[in-house]
Amino acid sequence: MNPEALDPHPALPPDSGSGSGPPVGLGFVREAWYVLAWDHEIGASGFFTRTVLGQALLAYRTADGEVVVLEDRCPHRQAPLSRGTREGDAIRCGYHGLKFDRSGHCVDLPGLEGPIPLRVCVRRYPVRVHRRWVMVWMGQAHTADPALLPDNLSCEHADWRYEPGYLHYETAWELIADNLLDFSHLSFVHAQTLGGSEQVARIRPHVETLPRGVRVSRRITSVPAPAYYRPLWDYTGLIDRWIDYDFLLPGILLMSSGACRAGADPMDDSAGIRFHSCQALTPETATCTHYFFQESHLAWQGNDQTTRGLFEGLLRAFSEDREMITAQARNLDPHRPMLALHMDSALMRFRARVQAAIQAEG
Amino acid sequence: MNPEALDPHPALPPDSGSGSGPPVGLGFVREAWYVLAWDHEIGASGFFTRTVLGQALLAYRTADGEVVVLEDRCPHRQAPLSRGTREGDAIRCGYHGLKFDRSGHCVDLPGLEGPIPLRVCVRRYPVRVHRRWVMVWMGQAHTADPALLPDNLSCEHADWRYEPGYLHYETAWELIADNLLDFSHLSFVHAQTLGGSEQVARIRPHVETLPRGVRVSRRITSVPAPAYYRPLWDYTGLIDRWIDYDFLLPGILLMSSGACRAGADPMDDSAGIRFHSCQALTPETATCTHYFFQESHLAWQGNDQTTRGLFEGLLRAFSEDREMITAQARNLDPHRPMLALHMDSALMRFRARVQAAIQAEG
Amino acid sequence: MNPEALDPHPALPPDSGSGSGPPVGLGFVREAWYVLAWDHEIGASGFFTRTVLGQALLAYRTADGEVVVLEDRCPHRQAPLSRGTREGDAIRCGYHGLKFDRSGHCVDLPGLEGPIPLRVCVRRYPVRVHRRWVMVWMGQAHTADPALLPDNLSCEHADWRYEPGYLHYETAWELIADNLLDFSHLSFVHAQTLGGSEQVARIRPHVETLPRGVRVSRRITSVPAPAYYRPLWDYTGLIDRWIDYDFLLPGILLMSSGACRAGADPMDDSAGIRFHSCQALTPETATCTHYFFQESHLAWQGNDQTTRGLFEGLLRAFSEDREMITAQARNLDPHRPMLALHMDSALMRFRARVQAAIQAEG
Repeated sequence: MNPEALDPHPALPPDSGSGSGPPVGLGFVREAWYVLAWDHEIGASGFFTRTVLGQALLAYRTADGEVVVLEDRCPHRQAPLSRGTREGDAIRCGYHGLKFDRSGHCVDLPGLEGPIPLRVCVRRYPVRVHRRWVMVWMGQAHTADPALLPDNLSCEHADWRYEPGYLHYETAWELIADNLLDFSHLSFVHAQTLGGSEQVARIRPHVETLPRGVRVSRRITSVPAPAYYRPLWDYTGLIDRWIDYDFLLPGILLMSSGACRAGADPMDDSAGIRFHSCQALTPETATCTHYFFQESHLAWQGNDQTTRGLFEGLLRAFSEDREMITAQARNLDPHRPMLALHMDSALMRFRARVQAAIQAEG
Repeated sequence: MNPEALDPHPALPPDSGSGSGPPVGLGFVREAWYVLAWDHEIGASGFFTRTVLGQALLAYRTADGEVVVLEDRCPHRQAPLSRGTREGDAIRCGYHGLKFDRSGHCVDLPGLEGPIPLRVCVRRYPVRVHRRWVMVWMGQAHTADPALLPDNLSCEHADWRYEPGYLHYETAWELIADNLLDFSHLSFVHAQTLGGSEQVARIRPHVETLPRGVRVSRRITSVPAPAYYRPLWDYTGLIDRWIDYDFLLPGILLMSSGACRAGADPMDDSAGIRFHSCQALTPETATCTHYFFQESHLAWQGNDQTTRGLFEGLLRAFSEDREMITAQARNLDPHRPMLALHMDSALMRFRARVQAAIQAEG
Repeated sequence: MNPEALDPHPALPPDSGSGSGPPVGLGFVREAWYVLAWDHEIGASGFFTRTVLGQALLAYRTADGEVVVLEDRCPHRQAPLSRGTREGDAIRCGYHGLKFDRSGHCVDLPGLEGPIPLRVCVRRYPVRVHRRWVMVWMGQAHTADPALLPDNLSCEHADWRYEPGYLHYETAWELIADNLLDFSHLSFVHAQTLGGSEQVARIRPHVETLPRGVRVSRRITSVPAPAYYRPLWDYTGLIDRWIDYDFLLPGILLMSSGACRAGADPMDDSAGIRFHSCQALTPETATCTHYFFQESHLAWQGNDQTTRGLFEGLLRAFSEDREMITAQARNLDPHRPMLALHMDSALMRFRARVQAAIQAEG
């Protein structure tokens, strides 16, 4: 991408004179893939449970290695199926013994003679293991569209190395999306980790609307390197940085970023470093959120210790975010809209995308 | 009872094609006796407090040994009277010193000269100590009907021995009643305690509607004995079991059960064992419940150690119930009815009884 | 004041035949000064935070020693400003770096060129440090009226000595005001501390309505001294006591009290003791309250140890109140009014004052 092509001063959002709407409560896009888990979280035996969009889900791996995702609720008296037992690839409820196969159909109903009515079944969710992300379709099963799986390329790619991350937030997903859509906070929340300079906030990013989200690009020149880079590149001179990412429905961040010696050619990896990051927000409920993340460095730069050091720095920085966002969430005045400012351009465009998608679902 | 008289295959409940209504939220039957406490819980001095149907109750024993139950709330500024002191058979509020006699009338109102208005009084509840159960009438006092006291005969009877049990549930009373009305769960929840065989679930019980509840009867033949029997009868051959109980408004279970060697005469106690069990659900609030229980064995079978061993087994089993029901309660989808199945026949008839009783109270 | 002038038997409150209205939920008087803190709580550096009437407030002391009170919420995305940093007398938000001066105006908006819109500002609250009480005006700034500052004279006066007290209540402010408006509770809640005799409750106080509250006066003659007096006056004979206080909007108690040997001249300090007490209720939210208090003794009576001993006794007594009021709050039946009695005369008049003030604010 040519940095010169970026408009450094996009117009203020059109409605910036008024508030930017309620801070939370947008709702959920349902017709979408969500990250349920990292692939390794779902073992060869037993059950894995996680709540997504307020729905209790049960995942397990069949004998042939496939991941099955069912609602974790027996249709009979709503006990969690995860308190039951596995019988091969089927599961038996631990309360009254109803047995369901991997498709969710009841195949044993103790005490009933004759055929089992079809209505005795558990909802099954479409699922894809997509480059180590176990993705579940939360909309209607027949609309599940593999073309909408995110391009989380560095999650499984020989050129990239990372450690997988997960954080649980006790805040609504909207506030975390807002955070990821306005990197001016790097200068203040992450002064000692990812930021390193007030210039990140003082430079206006280029913001572009995409069919399913927004694209944000930042160029920051002649600044000191942030502490986060050190395990990979302990350079003490001034550097040029770039940060380019797409933030896509329902809440996926795909980012290319990097830095080089000030004035060097950004394409020359010998003069700097590059990252690729995949992050995903999966609402647990309206007020709690799962956060999956990784940031990869180039596989030929550094070793295991580098990977670990970068991960620890990332985790430190993302904990800074969580502290701030949690404090923000507790401090929200539900009766007052937020004050829209120039740095909210990307987040307001994304919120509009979310609202349109929810409206389209009817 | 003649096992042959039991219809092993009652029709499905008439509305089993649709859902069976909301899982909780039926409300409370008020014109009824509830177990407030085991007799020994209310000492000779001091106060005993427990909340029943959302009402804070205060109980104490007068000098003549009678149990008095008053609302635990001073009518003046609603402080708990249990923070006050006893003055003989009267109590004085610890906040502003109002004194009430055992009938709930105010007999000292500091600072007032002249007669005390009759409206300065505390609600008194009709109470009966009925075979070790302290029972309180939660409806209007003038409707309290001793004929409705339950036939908890083994709670105080020379033929029977037991240890009294109590568990507190953080779930609505309806879910516990459901559990007690469908013993098919014995095979799965209690596989290692009360169940011992899938046959308990695979046999259809006979269900009969009573004026104030339902009668449920089960015959299970040629099965292994459950672990629970061992302290009393360590028999390793196959057995025949019977389980017959009434479940009555507002939430009382009275049960005769037993077992004998397979094919033996159930009336011949030398070939087996017999139990009598009294259990009571007393809603604390809409979402929490007191559970009183005992299961008696024949006094001439076994000794103190037998009684203790059986009690420990029962407590283990009822803790299994509580874990399952608590998990179920947390898992309820309030927007979705439960799916009515053949095993719900008794619980649906009982729920209908509850709804009719509440409606009749107006 | 001439004790003979007091009418010992005021009429019952006119509406005492019915209930006295809901126990809590009156709301807040907003056009008033509230105690935010004791002066020493706000240090020379850093931030002090406290929530008042549900509003998160941030206080700090400028270089010239003035106390500034701002809303603790950035107008941009509502993060707490107290998670930011001070830059001289200005503060910078720790999320996106907006900087506000002591008047609440934004003076640096990272990434914006040109003038900062006036709407980017934080609400500033009028504040007065008034005899060691930091008082904040919670109404509209232009209506802040210094004439309404309370006459908390003993908080800073050469004749009086005290230690400052603070307790946090997890109950609505109304219940604490009720407590302070009916000292008949001294005989029962404080039998071992402030009370010492049932006579406090059995004597009727004189109650007078004031423009912004009520005046309550009590004379109790020939009673034993309460334990609370001992650090100052270890007198074992009978005494005469007087307790005179104003309770004023929004929740300020100003009290003169004392005691002398029974039958002695109350004006003769050599025959007894005198106190002056200033207490303030500041609602944190509708359900929690800040309680500031002190009770001063005459500076020439006693020493540091006396002051400490009296404070410890006061704290013990006020903890007795908090226990009782907390128990009362948990015990409230929201559907039932309290039963108005003769001792509620002062609290009912004050509640009427509160309701009129809230209504006048519109």
